[in-house]
Amino acid sequence: MKWKRSERLVDMTRHLLDCPHELIPLTFFSERYQSAKSSISEDLTIVNETFKEKGTGKLMTVTGAAGGVKFIPQMDEQAIRETISLLMEELGQSDRLLPGGYLFMADLLGNPKIMDRVGKVFASAFAETEIDAIMTVATKGIPIAHAIARHMNVPVVIVRRDSKVTEGSTVTINYVSGSSRRIQTMVLSKRSMPSGQKVLLTDDFMKAGGTMAGMKNLLEEFDCELAGIAVLVEAAHHTDVLVEEYLSLVKLCEVNEKDRTIELNEGNYFLKGGN
Amino acid sequence: MKWKRSERLVDMTRHLLDCPHELIPLTFFSERYQSAKSSISEDLTIVNETFKEKGTGKLMTVTGAAGGVKFIPQMDEQAIRETISLLMEELGQSDRLLPGGYLFMADLLGNPKIMDRVGKVFASAFAETEIDAIMTVATKGIPIAHAIARHMNVPVVIVRRDSKVTEGSTVTINYVSGSSRRIQTMVLSKRSMPSGQKVLLTDDFMKAGGTMAGMKNLLEEFDCELAGIAVLVEAAHHTDVLVEEYLSLVKLCEVNEKDRTIELNEGNYFLKGGN
Repeated sequence: MKWKRSERLVDMTRHLLDCPHELIPLTFFSERYQSAKSSISEDLTIVNETFKEKGTGKLMTVTGAAGGVKFIPQMDEQAIRETISLLMEELGQSDRLLPGGYLFMADLLGNPKIMDRVGKVFASAFAETEIDAIMTVATKGIPIAHAIARHMNVPVVIVRRDSKVTEGSTVTINYVSGSSRRIQTMVLSKRSMPSGQKVLLTDDFMKAGGTMAGMKNLLEEFDCELAGIAVLVEAAHHTDVLVEEYLSLVKLCEVNEKDRTIELNEGNYFLKGGN
Repeated sequence: MKWKRSERLVDMTRHLLDCPHELIPLTFFSERYQSAKSSISEDLTIVNETFKEKGTGKLMTVTGAAGGVKFIPQMDEQAIRETISLLMEELGQSDRLLPGGYLFMADLLGNPKIMDRVGKVFASAFAETEIDAIMTVATKGIPIAHAIARHMNVPVVIVRRDSKVTEGSTVTINYVSGSSRRIQTMVLSKRSMPSGQKVLLTDDFMKAGGTMAGMKNLLEEFDCELAGIAVLVEAAHHTDVLVEEYLSLVKLCEVNEKDRTIELNEGNYFLKGGN
């Protein structure tokens, strides 16, 4: 049964959104819809124009025998700024203040829609970067790592604080946390990451960058390479940050426990050419 | 600028897929595309037919002043069976065997595409169930919880094994793990879940169901209600399971460490009327 253009457009849009950063041969679509490749090409032009118009992303066409089309999620600047504003508004609520000047963020990290947007913001920044895997430390970075991974179509690698029997043999490193200067441990299952990978590190919060520096050490142990660092919230602090290049969405400047005020700024996302 | 039908269909499909289980007023679309409501209705009919045809889900129309359209993700039986087969094939590989008869699953749990499919399988089963939140225990259930949550548009609540300063005040319970009969602890931040919620529990692995029973206790502490239980892999074992109603995708029947064989079966998903 031959498909009408309108039906093809709906299903094609769904399929492309489901498979970001994946090369889909035109023959896949022409067989699926029993339609000529020339019609499929016209359909893809409509999808591409609409995606670009509405800040969904873009289609990349690869020509030749092994050719096809690839959907690259790409948020436009306005939508990214709206996401950052939304995060700042949420994080600025004084009832998030916890003893010790910490901010309660579990609700944001548990919100699938906000996580999806955060994931797309970072996936947009790293759309042109070669990335094979996304690494985070359990527990709170996991939703962010998975949200980015879904938009980039790469696996997530989770570092733990302790070793578990279900991980098999592991590599353990010790590192000094940046702000508290305590010695901490990181454990990664040997089989969770092959060597030679280009890895994006992510976490929900970064102060002096000790956790990130620890993950960098782990990358070396696995003969892998740092491809970028993405943090949701970075905190201002007095010493130098232990990692150089990173992207952040929000900067926590000051917390006043007595007056219960939280001072936030935009992170360095746009400064660092995140988009 | 008025939009053409072809462009509307692409953007509308994208928007509906981005907002599952969310009521979208027709005026949203008619304003966004500068088009008459009658045209929007026709568009939605095309989207609905194509979604149903290809096992993407269905559109529910709510009439009246507060009316609109809602996208309900719904995988068809064939796609669910394919997902279960894929999981069984993956999990049956003998190099997953770890000392003690455990299976290495971190790579599956870190694969965003597989997690997305698993999430949609469970979201399909619970599409008609009233669910306000999805709860899991850190660490390995988190990707599954978020995958289901994204398709159901509800928040994720993460129970921890230990208390952390960034959680604020917490409720702690002790429970007896089902298989090892050890006393274990579960901690949930007080502000991470209001009372009166209907909660779906999920985890990557269930043996005697001790962890699930522990989460059930926590639900009671928070005056919340159990709405369902979804597990990726259940293990056969000799005593009764501590929870009654649950859905599983795969059943681990026997592991032979000497011969390095893994015997798997389908879980109870279809038996329990998962779809």
